[in-house]
Amino acid sequence: MFKNNGKLSMGEGTHEISMELFALNRKRLVEKLRTKNPPKDAIVFLQGGVDVPFNDTDVYFIFRQESYFMWAFGVLEPDCYGAIEIETGKTHLFVPRLPDSYAIWMGPLHSLEDFSKKYLIENVYYSDTIADVLTNLNPSALLIMNGVNSDSGLDFTEPYFEGIENFTLEREILYNEIADLRVVKSNLELDVMKYVIEVSSAAHRKVMRMAKPGRSEYQCESEFLHHTYSVGGCRHVSYTCICGSGTNSAILHYGHAGAPNDRFIKEGDICLFDMGANYFGYAADITCSFPPNGKFTPDQKLIYEAVLEANLAVTNTAKPGVNWLDMHFLANRVLLSELKKGGLLQGDVDEMVSAGLGHTFQPHGLGHLLGLDVHDVGGYLPSHPERRKAPTGAHKLRTSRNLLEGMVLTIEPGCYFIDPLLDEALEDPNLSKFLVPEAIKRFRGFGGVRIEDDVLVTATGIKNLTKVPRTVPEIEDWIANKDDDKY
Amino acid sequence: MFKNNGKLSMGEGTHEISMELFALNRKRLVEKLRTKNPPKDAIVFLQGGVDVPFNDTDVYFIFRQESYFMWAFGVLEPDCYGAIEIETGKTHLFVPRLPDSYAIWMGPLHSLEDFSKKYLIENVYYSDTIADVLTNLNPSALLIMNGVNSDSGLDFTEPYFEGIENFTLEREILYNEIADLRVVKSNLELDVMKYVIEVSSAAHRKVMRMAKPGRSEYQCESEFLHHTYSVGGCRHVSYTCICGSGTNSAILHYGHAGAPNDRFIKEGDICLFDMGANYFGYAADITCSFPPNGKFTPDQKLIYEAVLEANLAVTNTAKPGVNWLDMHFLANRVLLSELKKGGLLQGDVDEMVSAGLGHTFQPHGLGHLLGLDVHDVGGYLPSHPERRKAPTGAHKLRTSRNLLEGMVLTIEPGCYFIDPLLDEALEDPNLSKFLVPEAIKRFRGFGGVRIEDDVLVTATGIKNLTKVPRTVPEIEDWIANKDDDKY
Repeated sequence: MFKNNGKLSMGEGTHEISMELFALNRKRLVEKLRTKNPPKDAIVFLQGGVDVPFNDTDVYFIFRQESYFMWAFGVLEPDCYGAIEIETGKTHLFVPRLPDSYAIWMGPLHSLEDFSKKYLIENVYYSDTIADVLTNLNPSALLIMNGVNSDSGLDFTEPYFEGIENFTLEREILYNEIADLRVVKSNLELDVMKYVIEVSSAAHRKVMRMAKPGRSEYQCESEFLHHTYSVGGCRHVSYTCICGSGTNSAILHYGHAGAPNDRFIKEGDICLFDMGANYFGYAADITCSFPPNGKFTPDQKLIYEAVLEANLAVTNTAKPGVNWLDMHFLANRVLLSELKKGGLLQGDVDEMVSAGLGHTFQPHGLGHLLGLDVHDVGGYLPSHPERRKAPTGAHKLRTSRNLLEGMVLTIEPGCYFIDPLLDEALEDPNLSKFLVPEAIKRFRGFGGVRIEDDVLVTATGIKNLTKVPRTVPEIEDWIANKDDDKY
Repeated sequence: MFKNNGKLSMGEGTHEISMELFALNRKRLVEKLRTKNPPKDAIVFLQGGVDVPFNDTDVYFIFRQESYFMWAFGVLEPDCYGAIEIETGKTHLFVPRLPDSYAIWMGPLHSLEDFSKKYLIENVYYSDTIADVLTNLNPSALLIMNGVNSDSGLDFTEPYFEGIENFTLEREILYNEIADLRVVKSNLELDVMKYVIEVSSAAHRKVMRMAKPGRSEYQCESEFLHHTYSVGGCRHVSYTCICGSGTNSAILHYGHAGAPNDRFIKEGDICLFDMGANYFGYAADITCSFPPNGKFTPDQKLIYEAVLEANLAVTNTAKPGVNWLDMHFLANRVLLSELKKGGLLQGDVDEMVSAGLGHTFQPHGLGHLLGLDVHDVGGYLPSHPERRKAPTGAHKLRTSRNLLEGMVLTIEPGCYFIDPLLDEALEDPNLSKFLVPEAIKRFRGFGGVRIEDDVLVTATGIKNLTKVPRTVPEIEDWIANKDDDKY
């Protein structure tokens, strides 16, 4: 018997996810698929994630369920499969038949009925009977996943079980439809996302107060991980924490094996910490930029407030029907305009945008869909706008869709002083004419600022789900241990 | 330019690993290989670890270097290769040629000279030139890895680069020799292991004090991870933390995705926490068992002290030349003898051991080699004793070698009350005659105790590198906030 039936939770003080969330996802899926003229008696067939060993050893990376399988079934264990009959919505779960020795090493063996009660799925079988069970259902085809992740460029791995070659496999329908459904979150999903974003916000606030000159970047990472796990029950983060201080704050994917957050923070640094917890698959993705000594320098204030203006411009403008590409260039325009006011740039701002100067200071997209993956799926699908190549910067966007109510996205404009990009711009007459060389020189080595919020698109606009100090006075007050009741 | 040259370290307060450690490993390797009549001008060729994506997404598991490659080169980045000329010991490192865009996303591009200075390896090239560089060296063969990990049963993945098909590949020599060398640690390696064991010990001590009834198992896991990372600079653990409380303490591999340390500790529980940090690849592996309310019950004391006697018997007996299988059965004998004194068993202890009763209460081996892998390599090699099938329990041992000075192992006897194993013993007349049924009944649901130390085999005996309270009074005092200066 499992401890919890019909819900996922890490216990007291953490969010309780009803299995209804996943039942609703399946319902949405079959309803959508029925409109696509699927083969008669067709069955959706998905394979769950498998355990991944560390090279040839007997140590495994901590398992997290594959995201599409999680979306459809909410099942936590590896090596499972699931099937959904499109006509009836009837759901079948297949779990591994574990040897008796499992009880010694891994805990009590759970019966098929246990799994049925835990996940509220009526039909549960051992996975060595998949072929028999499916044969009895006599589908004209199994709808399976086939597609390319537009963020990674990696192919989705097709499901496999012994005997699958005896079924007709339909590869054209499922991937795009399920990806498209994942883009719009149900209210039950939003509750989970609000929770994980709130937990991540609280951890960011804690880190802002402990990140002092003399502390290491990885101590800040560790504090974030500790808070989100021990207080929020989040065993995973959605991506490796990026904890850049000083010039490292301009390295967009800092924190990797070659640069593992191992610098010690210095007086006068700016910190850019991009960290998000993961609760039963659902991701947060928040960036805070702040001076760890508690006081912005004039230059830090200038750049920070320029980025904040860009962030607020998007937050105040975005709503259903608005195109994301337009929001990206709105952010670019506001940022460049603020940099001009600050004396770093000269000339016409619209011309700067057209010339692609936005990309010099923010070589990444404005933001991305957020959900069970941190770069959530559905950004580029056949039924939506393609990836654009121009103007410069558009190609970096992870989606160019029109916004829909129920989407969750990040809004994350930034401004970075990256030597190779500055050199490139200075050498390009189309760009260099906008740069004020002395000012640009002053900002070499400054690092960067990113202000990344996780937001929900509502019927009328944007609801910011992130709860961290954002204005310069808010941040300075927070680090000075004021405003404890504000967030 | 890299921040640190010639050393690996997480900065102030953490251990500094000299690159001499890896140079010495390579020296030991070529000296050993020269005695094996390798093909003329043969070259050892190793491929490093690659980044592993989370399914088809653009998120990757945090990279940790493959252990054999780490042992030989100490290189932290993914996608590298290394070659060592056996006759001269001359070493060649191959690093990926990264695109210019890397500088925007991943930080400053490092030159070949930077890598050479960082890792103290004279010859560094881009990995797209491997075939050319090796062709110029004109080896009669490349010695490559080929073998099966005796703990996982998984094959080692052979190296690959474009053009490797034009070289003669020798697969018989390298794997066993390098595995055998990894078994005995150099003094430089021992310094790292002492450090990571000390950091892990301190984290265990901290967790013992915070693990109170009402707290969750995962809060304890989180505390351990936080201490070892933020204080010790250990970004990884060597295996998923096992934080079992109450009956979960009898689940040997508790903590996996299906049982993710999510129980809340109750009054009267025993906790069994098996956790070990990892510092630049080197592993600790420590288990503490204790009553989280600070006071052993008489039954908990009985079982705990029985296991401790078994642990101490091995610690006091083991030394170079002693066979590990003998130590396993010594631990069994002492444990069973103590359980007899405690009224759980009856009859002749030697007969119990021969009948395999040790396996009923401790269904795992006494301990294992420890190093760059938590279940370190070299346990079963052609030149050493094979895995034994009898008596019952012997098959579970990860090595049956004779001890050598410089080995690091775990000594980890345990006693668990696992229903299926107790049922099995009660039904087996060869075992049931030793059991006192009423006493066994009393201990159903008790959980389990394991006392796991990380030890070094010295010239004359065993040096315990673990620094945690171990006797009943030591543990009770420690939890009562006494003895702060003792460890």
